[in-house]
Amino acid sequence: MHLGDARIGVFDSGVGGLTVVRALRSALPGHDIIYLGDTARVPYGTKSPRTVERYSLACQRFLLDHAVDLVLVACNTASATALPALREASAVPVIGVVEPGAESALRVSRHRRIGVIGTLATVGSGAYPRAIRALAPDSVVVAEACPLLVPLAEEGWTDDDIARAVAHRYLSRLFAQDPGLDTLVLGCTHYPLLRAVLAEIAEALAGHPIAVVDSATALAVAADAHFGGSARSGRAGGGSLHCFATDTSRLEELAPRFLGERPASFALVDI
Amino acid sequence: MHLGDARIGVFDSGVGGLTVVRALRSALPGHDIIYLGDTARVPYGTKSPRTVERYSLACQRFLLDHAVDLVLVACNTASATALPALREASAVPVIGVVEPGAESALRVSRHRRIGVIGTLATVGSGAYPRAIRALAPDSVVVAEACPLLVPLAEEGWTDDDIARAVAHRYLSRLFAQDPGLDTLVLGCTHYPLLRAVLAEIAEALAGHPIAVVDSATALAVAADAHFGGSARSGRAGGGSLHCFATDTSRLEELAPRFLGERPASFALVDI
Repeated sequence: MHLGDARIGVFDSGVGGLTVVRALRSALPGHDIIYLGDTARVPYGTKSPRTVERYSLACQRFLLDHAVDLVLVACNTASATALPALREASAVPVIGVVEPGAESALRVSRHRRIGVIGTLATVGSGAYPRAIRALAPDSVVVAEACPLLVPLAEEGWTDDDIARAVAHRYLSRLFAQDPGLDTLVLGCTHYPLLRAVLAEIAEALAGHPIAVVDSATALAVAADAHFGGSARSGRAGGGSLHCFATDTSRLEELAPRFLGERPASFALVDI
Repeated sequence: MHLGDARIGVFDSGVGGLTVVRALRSALPGHDIIYLGDTARVPYGTKSPRTVERYSLACQRFLLDHAVDLVLVACNTASATALPALREASAVPVIGVVEPGAESALRVSRHRRIGVIGTLATVGSGAYPRAIRALAPDSVVVAEACPLLVPLAEEGWTDDDIARAVAHRYLSRLFAQDPGLDTLVLGCTHYPLLRAVLAEIAEALAGHPIAVVDSATALAVAADAHFGGSARSGRAGGGSLHCFATDTSRLEELAPRFLGERPASFALVDI
C-alpha cells in the first residue's frame, strides 16, 4: 500500500499505450508517470512470442531503472505473451492489460457471450478467452485478428467508408462465430480511436445492443485499485508525465491524437 | 567481373524482398542466394532514418559474414535512407532498389511524368524523385505514402472492394498532384501483390494508359547487369537459396505467396 504519491511505469510497443496514460492521467493525476513506447520495433502484434518477450523485458528493464513502483503493460500483445516472464524479472508489481479487460468484459456482459478483437499475436495467444474463462468458466468467448485496424487508426481514417468496410469484414467474421455476442472487447490500444465505427457496425450486425470494453480504460481502473481505489492517493493532481520512445518517427504527429495533452518531455532512448 | 557463379546476398525488412528473390531466381538461376528478412523489426517504413540505418547495417553485416559477392538492398526504405552508410561499410558492391527503379521508370515513361508510391519513410526521404531527376532533370515526379497497402497485401485482400477503395483514395491523391502522370512506380516490395488493382485504378483515374514499374524486377535486372548481362554467368541453373529471418511469425504462411517456391532452408537468426 502506498501512502504517498507513486511513480507508475507504462510501456507499449508504440504510441497506442498513450490511451492508457490518458486514462491514468484522468483517474490518478497525482502520480508520476514514465511512459516508454518501443516505436523502433513496433508493431509487436505480428511477431513471435519469443521476440515479443525479449523486447518486452528490455522495455521493463528501462522502467525499473527509473525506479517505478508499478509496471503497467499497456501492450495487449506483450500482456498476452510475456506477462509471466515480466513478473519473474520484476521486484515491483506488474499488471497487464488482459486481466483487467477480461474483468471489465464480465462486469458488463449480460449473457457472458463475449467477442474479442486484437492483433494477430494477441488473438493467436488465446490470452483473452483464457482469462475470461478462468473467471467465468461458462462464458462463450470468440476472437478475431484485425491487422488493418492499427494502420487505419494511424492514418486517421476512423470515420469513413473504408473504416466501415474494414470493420464490417472483420466483425462479420466475429459474429459468424457467435451471432449472440453481447460484448465486444477492444483488445488493442489503437482500437479506441475506432470505437465509434466498431460499435456502430457491431450493433448493426448483431441487431441488439453491444457493450464495448476498452482495455486501456480497464487497465487504468486496475492501477487505481492497486493504489487502494478512490479514497487513496494520486487524486490531488500535480503528477508529472515523462515520455520516452525508441524511435521518434511520427511521434509528434501521432502522440497528441492518442494522449490528448503534451507531455513534460519526450526523449529518444536506445534500449 | 565474376567468371564463375557468385553468391548474392539480399536483405529486406521482412518478407516483401522475396519478390526480388523470385525475380533473381528467374533471371540468374545459377547464382547462390542468401536472403535475410528482418521480420522481428519489420516494418522499416514507419521508422526514422537513424533507426533504419542501424538495422540495415546489422542486416548487411550478417550477409557479409556469409561471404556474399554482392549485396542487394531489396527494402525500398533502407535503399532510400541507408545506402551511403551501407556502401561505406561494405567491401563488396551494394545495389539498392531505388536507382534501378528510377532507371526503369525513365525507360518506360513516354512524357517523363512519373508517380511513386511507397511507405512513409521511402516517400519522406524523397529518394525516388531525387534519383529520377538526377538521370533526367526535366522529369516531373510526384509521390504519395500508402501505409495501408502493406497490411492489405499481407492479409491477401488484393482483389476486392476494400483494396479498390484504399487504392482509389491513395492514387486519387497522387493524380491530384499531376493528372498527366504516365508511369507509376511501385516503390515497395509488397506492392507487386496489389499490381493488378493499382494498375486498374490508376488507368481509371488517368483516363489514359499507365506504365507500371515494379522495383523488385528492376533490382533483379540491375543484378544481372552487374554480372555482365545475359551472356555471362548465372544462367545455367542449380544455384541454391537459403533464407534467414529474425522472427518466424507468419513466415510459413507468407513466404510462398511472395516467393513462389520453397527455399532449401529457412532458419531463425538473432542479429
